[in-house]
Amino acid sequence: MGGPGSSSATLGLDLGGTKIAAGVLLGEELVSFVERPTPRGGAAVVGALAEAAREALGGRSVVAAGVGTPGPLDFDRGVVRFAPNLPGLKNFPLRARLEAALGLPVVLENDANAAALAEHHLGAARGARHSLFVTVSTGIGGGVIVDGRVHRGAFGQGGEVGHLTVLPGGPLCGCGNRGCLEAVASGRALERDAAYAYGRPVPVPELFARNDAKARALIEGAAGHLGLALASLQRVFDPEVIVLGGGVALGGGAAFLRRIEAAYRGHLRGWRRAPLRLARLGREAGVIGAALAARTA
Amino acid sequence: MGGPGSSSATLGLDLGGTKIAAGVLLGEELVSFVERPTPRGGAAVVGALAEAAREALGGRSVVAAGVGTPGPLDFDRGVVRFAPNLPGLKNFPLRARLEAALGLPVVLENDANAAALAEHHLGAARGARHSLFVTVSTGIGGGVIVDGRVHRGAFGQGGEVGHLTVLPGGPLCGCGNRGCLEAVASGRALERDAAYAYGRPVPVPELFARNDAKARALIEGAAGHLGLALASLQRVFDPEVIVLGGGVALGGGAAFLRRIEAAYRGHLRGWRRAPLRLARLGREAGVIGAALAARTA
Repeated sequence: MGGPGSSSATLGLDLGGTKIAAGVLLGEELVSFVERPTPRGGAAVVGALAEAAREALGGRSVVAAGVGTPGPLDFDRGVVRFAPNLPGLKNFPLRARLEAALGLPVVLENDANAAALAEHHLGAARGARHSLFVTVSTGIGGGVIVDGRVHRGAFGQGGEVGHLTVLPGGPLCGCGNRGCLEAVASGRALERDAAYAYGRPVPVPELFARNDAKARALIEGAAGHLGLALASLQRVFDPEVIVLGGGVALGGGAAFLRRIEAAYRGHLRGWRRAPLRLARLGREAGVIGAALAARTA
Repeated sequence: MGGPGSSSATLGLDLGGTKIAAGVLLGEELVSFVERPTPRGGAAVVGALAEAAREALGGRSVVAAGVGTPGPLDFDRGVVRFAPNLPGLKNFPLRARLEAALGLPVVLENDANAAALAEHHLGAARGARHSLFVTVSTGIGGGVIVDGRVHRGAFGQGGEVGHLTVLPGGPLCGCGNRGCLEAVASGRALERDAAYAYGRPVPVPELFARNDAKARALIEGAAGHLGLALASLQRVFDPEVIVLGGGVALGGGAAFLRRIEAAYRGHLRGWRRAPLRLARLGREAGVIGAALAARTA
């Protein structure tokens, strides 16, 4: 790849369940950034991305674009296979549609892989050779970076850290299997467990901040599962740095991170371990990573 | 690396808990292979490896040697950090000692990584880009091959599949943590559980072959844990092929593999999956892989 130091401008697009974003990366700097709500349906999504792109470009010319999107993806065909948070994009040829709309070559990347790439080269894992990125928000995703590149794997499922089984026989996950990390430690899993434990929907982070006992138990449970998963991955992937991002991880603050780290250390007795760091690039990570992915083209 | 097609001869050495082996790899062919018991203690091990090497070489000249050994290893310093099955080799500078004894540059590789490399290039995963190797014997090890190369990771712990946590709170593992795959599905774990369930040590594989109910439950339990671990790894690493080796996996025959595969498929509903294949290179895998590792030098 041209690498993060490349001086050619590339366009990054980030397609999320609630927001889309676009920006232009020039060298190591994001020189523009626009965000808007995600519309429903494939055609509307492509239209909104193209409009955001035009606004972010502001007349600037770029050589390529990258788009980060929820997966799993079919990288060879540039197709979104399914994305629970984006109804209407099942088996959707996003790459071809965007190339037609933008008049640019487009690289499709998994959104978590894009964020992983951004944090690896320009964020919290800068300088590392191998890193692991885990995003804890509504769901749990991740990206594996080996030698500075995204490890997509044979079927484009590489880095699906949210679907590591951490509680065999545990709650049914959206993916159809039981006890996935996402099913026990994501924002949606916390909401589900809180609604059951309190008998009504409650704001877990707020209650946790007020030291409510049930909220503490819920957050400690999620942190424990996350620490266990990260410890397992340390022994198999052995990253140099582990980066945690996403609204739940970042919103949980120091108290949540401390609990994750305690569990992680507790499960790595006798093993060497990578430092855990919070993501640094915030909501711009997806756009930066998509733009970095475009530099491989 | 020169690759498996390289025509220069390299020496492969395999240091195991019970046996050491040596052989010469010429192109894709292992042209000699010798085996002997592993003596106790670092100096005796080096002496025995050097003697086996001389016998395998038979006067032939080679440009480099590789040695596969239980780990974790410190690759930078060429040191065996600890190896539960090789007492006396704690923090042992195996690379330097072997280089002195052989008069050759020596590449140190984890034994499971070496077998993974051998199966990837010349065995059951031949032709794949990414593959995962899991060896189930007294313990459980593994190797991760990304783009044809061993993924050693940041601390040399890469591929330690036996220490993926599959049963949180489960039996204490030799590594000091609970519920590792090795602690519930290795040969030693089966022996431990069988001794408890029968009240005396029993030969589980023989009883399983005779359809004994407890032995079936033990084997099915181990197969279930293995299937779960492989499914988790499919979602994070996404290999093209998964290769199973080791005495327990190979000795368990078709019935054991069928049960592992059933669990693996059951945990991958909705996901794409790599085929499971039995290792093909048998007891020569370690020597072949060590010789292949030497070609990177």
